[in-house]
Amino acid sequence: MKRIYLDHIAAAPLAPGVFEKMRPFLETDFGNPQSLHSDGQAAAEALAAAREHVSALIGADPGEVIFTASGTEANNLAIKGLAQAQRAKGNHILVSAIEHASVLNAVKTLEKSGFQTTIVPVDGEGRIDPADVVVALRKETVLVSVMTANSEVGTIEPVEDIVREVKAKAPGVLVHTDAVAAAGNVPLDVRALGVDALSFSGNAFYGPKGSAALFLKKGTKLVPQIEGGIQEGGRRGGTEDVAAIVGMGEAARLAAKAMPDRLVRMTALRDRLIEGLPRAVERVRLTGSPGRRLPYHASFCVEFVGGEAMLLSLDFKGIAASSFSACTSKSLKVSHVLLAMGLDHTLAQGSLIFSLIDSTAAADIDFLLDAFPPVVERLRKMSPLYTDFLKEQGR
Amino acid sequence: MKRIYLDHIAAAPLAPGVFEKMRPFLETDFGNPQSLHSDGQAAAEALAAAREHVSALIGADPGEVIFTASGTEANNLAIKGLAQAQRAKGNHILVSAIEHASVLNAVKTLEKSGFQTTIVPVDGEGRIDPADVVVALRKETVLVSVMTANSEVGTIEPVEDIVREVKAKAPGVLVHTDAVAAAGNVPLDVRALGVDALSFSGNAFYGPKGSAALFLKKGTKLVPQIEGGIQEGGRRGGTEDVAAIVGMGEAARLAAKAMPDRLVRMTALRDRLIEGLPRAVERVRLTGSPGRRLPYHASFCVEFVGGEAMLLSLDFKGIAASSFSACTSKSLKVSHVLLAMGLDHTLAQGSLIFSLIDSTAAADIDFLLDAFPPVVERLRKMSPLYTDFLKEQGR
Repeated sequence: MKRIYLDHIAAAPLAPGVFEKMRPFLETDFGNPQSLHSDGQAAAEALAAAREHVSALIGADPGEVIFTASGTEANNLAIKGLAQAQRAKGNHILVSAIEHASVLNAVKTLEKSGFQTTIVPVDGEGRIDPADVVVALRKETVLVSVMTANSEVGTIEPVEDIVREVKAKAPGVLVHTDAVAAAGNVPLDVRALGVDALSFSGNAFYGPKGSAALFLKKGTKLVPQIEGGIQEGGRRGGTEDVAAIVGMGEAARLAAKAMPDRLVRMTALRDRLIEGLPRAVERVRLTGSPGRRLPYHASFCVEFVGGEAMLLSLDFKGIAASSFSACTSKSLKVSHVLLAMGLDHTLAQGSLIFSLIDSTAAADIDFLLDAFPPVVERLRKMSPLYTDFLKEQGR
Repeated sequence: MKRIYLDHIAAAPLAPGVFEKMRPFLETDFGNPQSLHSDGQAAAEALAAAREHVSALIGADPGEVIFTASGTEANNLAIKGLAQAQRAKGNHILVSAIEHASVLNAVKTLEKSGFQTTIVPVDGEGRIDPADVVVALRKETVLVSVMTANSEVGTIEPVEDIVREVKAKAPGVLVHTDAVAAAGNVPLDVRALGVDALSFSGNAFYGPKGSAALFLKKGTKLVPQIEGGIQEGGRRGGTEDVAAIVGMGEAARLAAKAMPDRLVRMTALRDRLIEGLPRAVERVRLTGSPGRRLPYHASFCVEFVGGEAMLLSLDFKGIAASSFSACTSKSLKVSHVLLAMGLDHTLAQGSLIFSLIDSTAAADIDFLLDAFPPVVERLRKMSPLYTDFLKEQGR
């Protein structure tokens, strides 16, 4: 059976050519880049080249990139590392209500050592209002963390405006952004954004799992979280995963090149789905912002049915999608993102996320648009809520 | 030029077959193991199989293994995670003087939040005396961390005795061991050792970089350090690096199988080098224990010459070795391990470590034994210390 993969936010395939770039560092050039002898030299050179590509993708200098093993690790390093380094200056952190679990859990842990957190709300489209951030600033505030784009609802946040307004009122406050869902898929420039730190992950732009990085603006103090050797300028210990980093480097290079074309192509496919799905099935609504959203992302709430049941039914028809961020997809909680956007608990359970990959074709979208209505119809027949709704409607 | 790689402790090649096992998870089965749909299923199954092999290697249950991205990360997770989880019980930690930087730096960081550390000494062979550990126990002690084997001097520590004596005196004290240099190279059984936690790394037994794990005895409380999703039972967030984990699993399976033969073969080669080198060059002494040492490990101090100069000269002749643990090899510090063993600063600078890999042949050792004397002779000619020595000797 042909399978249609629309779960980019959970995992993406490697871009063509990335595997071949990684391969020598698994097969032959196995040296440690920190070694003094020649057998580490190929690895050291490849690491430096990858650092160039990865930093260039976001407009940073190579020395401003700290490689990590996941976006989650980069977020933990940023939140804990920056807050701890600023502890003498203050103990207040601002984060949005729709941040990834890695950010929200990291601030909860910091609270145990005396930090205080303010959770900034979002509107019904999942947008953070810069004014809400600014008004929550205190003289003790040392760190603001707002994501670049949300992987569950696709909304792109006004990070540039937030940074500008925060820095205007409180120049000493550091701003971090979790750009895992955005980097490599939309143009990002750390100087234009004005952020002090930015987390991003290789797999999100068709690099390997196990590759990610934290951009840290030159001169910004950071308390390392994984301590050990001199790797990454002493800011993240552990032997470098050379193959993964090389793969991320090549993916970054390819993503930068493909960006303009891909943006146009993905946006068209996304909009085909966003327009088509609510026409194909009644009582389906887009979640997130219609206008300011990730080009590969279409997310919905489907009334009277559960996300999990839809996923399994779609899977049976050869379509892979998701209902949650991958980190919690096997758990049964309702999305904190959708609740923060004001959706009620029942509706939030009907969450469905289609996230397109580079190879997604218009025919795939059309296949989904055909396959989806009978799935929903069958599930709704089993739903007492839907029966009630039909009765109310006199149908 | 033929190259002879004797730097296992810095990096090892993949065992034959490991790359091919990893390959599908880079090329085709790219799904996220946490996904509900079928595209994550191959990854989820491979992850479970790898967990079986990795846990079996050390006699643990699959649920007792937490995958990390490096031995350094596993050590940080163990030291910080166990200490923080025991904070209400006490604030004292015991570590040996020759632990890896990841352990020593982690305890230093814990000291900032109120922990106290006792550094247990080692003897001239780098051995920890269990009595020295027991005598340092306090009623506030919550954690002991002693390495299974040291990568700089090859000494295998009496971990089993230490655990037995610690638990006899203070049953509530947790014991962690950094087994990165030992696991997969010597037989290890967590039940026989009696430890509560054990760090190990895939590359040390011919698995990929980026693969490592922490054994955590069932029921042991741990504060996660990389927080995020539900991966690894909520104890270590971040999308699993499936290919790396699969590679570690296959390497563990192969290491277990190869262990008996390899032990015999490596020990013979090691002893050929340990006996041969001091015969080939005067004023060379073995560092670490002659009897209780890693089968792949031969380390020396060469008088009147610097380790770095020797490494570069050997490299020029096609031989890769190291002078330090890889984590600090590009830094210029003198080994804290050798200083803890009572070597003076000058002698410690002449440190040289040959660590054999599975493909090392007797001919490689003989090539080294031939190549080494002229290297030392040339360097000693430039050494004022050596000139003084010759004068003293009346030569």
